[in-house]
Amino acid sequence: MAAQRKSLIVVALGGNAISRADQEGNVSEQFENSRHTARALAELIQEGHQLVITHGNGPQIGNFLLRNEAAAGLIYPLPMEVAVAHVQGGMGFMIGQTLTNELHAHGRREIVTTIITTVLVDRDDPSFANPTKPVGRVFAKGEAAKYAKSEGWAMKEISPGQFRRVVPSPLPRHIMEIDTIRRAVAAGETIIACGGGGIPVIRDPHKGLMGTAAVIDKDLASALLAAELEADTMMILTAVDRVSINFGKPEERTLETMTVAEAKRWLAEGQFPAGSMGPKIQGAVDFLEASKKPHAAVVIGPLEHAADALAGRVGTRIARH
Amino acid sequence: MAAQRKSLIVVALGGNAISRADQEGNVSEQFENSRHTARALAELIQEGHQLVITHGNGPQIGNFLLRNEAAAGLIYPLPMEVAVAHVQGGMGFMIGQTLTNELHAHGRREIVTTIITTVLVDRDDPSFANPTKPVGRVFAKGEAAKYAKSEGWAMKEISPGQFRRVVPSPLPRHIMEIDTIRRAVAAGETIIACGGGGIPVIRDPHKGLMGTAAVIDKDLASALLAAELEADTMMILTAVDRVSINFGKPEERTLETMTVAEAKRWLAEGQFPAGSMGPKIQGAVDFLEASKKPHAAVVIGPLEHAADALAGRVGTRIARH
Repeated sequence: MAAQRKSLIVVALGGNAISRADQEGNVSEQFENSRHTARALAELIQEGHQLVITHGNGPQIGNFLLRNEAAAGLIYPLPMEVAVAHVQGGMGFMIGQTLTNELHAHGRREIVTTIITTVLVDRDDPSFANPTKPVGRVFAKGEAAKYAKSEGWAMKEISPGQFRRVVPSPLPRHIMEIDTIRRAVAAGETIIACGGGGIPVIRDPHKGLMGTAAVIDKDLASALLAAELEADTMMILTAVDRVSINFGKPEERTLETMTVAEAKRWLAEGQFPAGSMGPKIQGAVDFLEASKKPHAAVVIGPLEHAADALAGRVGTRIARH
Repeated sequence: MAAQRKSLIVVALGGNAISRADQEGNVSEQFENSRHTARALAELIQEGHQLVITHGNGPQIGNFLLRNEAAAGLIYPLPMEVAVAHVQGGMGFMIGQTLTNELHAHGRREIVTTIITTVLVDRDDPSFANPTKPVGRVFAKGEAAKYAKSEGWAMKEISPGQFRRVVPSPLPRHIMEIDTIRRAVAAGETIIACGGGGIPVIRDPHKGLMGTAAVIDKDLASALLAAELEADTMMILTAVDRVSINFGKPEERTLETMTVAEAKRWLAEGQFPAGSMGPKIQGAVDFLEASKKPHAAVVIGPLEHAADALAGRVGTRIARH
């Protein structure tokens, strides 16, 4: 199967693939959104491409932490990294099932499978000393101080009087389950991996691998996965039609293409906000610099027009030159 | 690797592998218990056997449902089958990491990997009309009636004035991700699959595969997995030293060996209680009747002496003749 594929694409699904801001976000809404996403992904597969799918988990982790909090005192909480592992299972089940059903509706027979993925980070990643990634709900000052004391959480004032817990966002160094993923991909399977950026683990010299309360950026993890799998293309599917520079200014320019050199220059200029377009462009640079394939490319484009984005009709295409 | 293995063993871990009745059951206790379990499993791997690991999820699902309940009104609940998917991720991460660390401590390099597993059940399985598997906490009569009405749950009086939710326990028919599992096993990997008996799915003629609020017995799912993988041995690791008949009676007899014919006769006599030893013996019969390997065997024995049980020094060995 793998030999006949047109190309191998690592597809990173953004938050809008499963959760929409105008919904409560409950499970039936998530399944409904997931079915829409599956249609866009199935179109790529029907065109002959092989997909490895990654996804974010922000809203789901937020809700997981809310359940933890609501049940405090009644039942033990699940730590951040264990929550990420749970949500990989839950979201992988949902995305896998809806995509499998969409493929079966086209007469195909494959089963889209989720592999629980841990991602090694450096113990001395600078982010551990400077946590910046907000997780969970907004707290008032008094609550924030209480949790900072009882749980040891780092808290950050995100707007006056409003606090959120922040966790480190270390760089992904190695995808621990890469051999399993690689073999499944070589056999032609459609695999879901690295959900939520992967479960962050450090290597302790005495205790071995250990989960750590952190969040790995899913676009950076996807870039590492794409490089390790020698993918032809990384697609970052999101809500925007194209990447812009000078966003919101008179000289704003939307981009159909971008080179790695331009991407690096604009990243250095601060053109792309941290936590949204920034890591997507950084992931694109990471993948293209690591890839050995001369034609490797990154496409950032709208989820609902994934096939058009791959063909260059919408979205922004980033390549070496 | 696979060609050099001594044998392929599907190991079904019972509740005591992760949770102990004398503990609260919090995450650090679960990791500690999981490390003990990992030592027993690593001994089998060090002896040259290849393992595929399955596990129960009773306490974890119970606690998951408690969190749902505590957060009711605040955040949407996760349905039963989605809870099973989450717990496969969380427990797979824990068991995988502790076993990986134990193997690395022996100088090995493999990464134990978890595959999210859905298991097909028949839409017309008789258990859907007669749910019997208790899940979640005990309710007083008034609460039970309230949830029966608001959630449509089937409730059962398990002792006077004490009610629990009961869900169907349909028979496992097909492991949907079997091709992925089989390929990983053929490559020599140690895989965790079918957690909690697998996520139960039915095939709807219009909607395709759909999760369903049910619990598949983990020993029966393990038997199906062992048969599909053409395992040499299925080990059911639990708290007992050996299987007994006439349990608690003067004529009680503990068994070192059992044939399939004896197992079937004693099952028909009601020697083995439903929900504990019953499904273990039924799983043994299912595997041995489905297996094409003449030397296939089932070992039921104590987790902490897994290697001794495999060697026949403790536990009960069930074989065709």
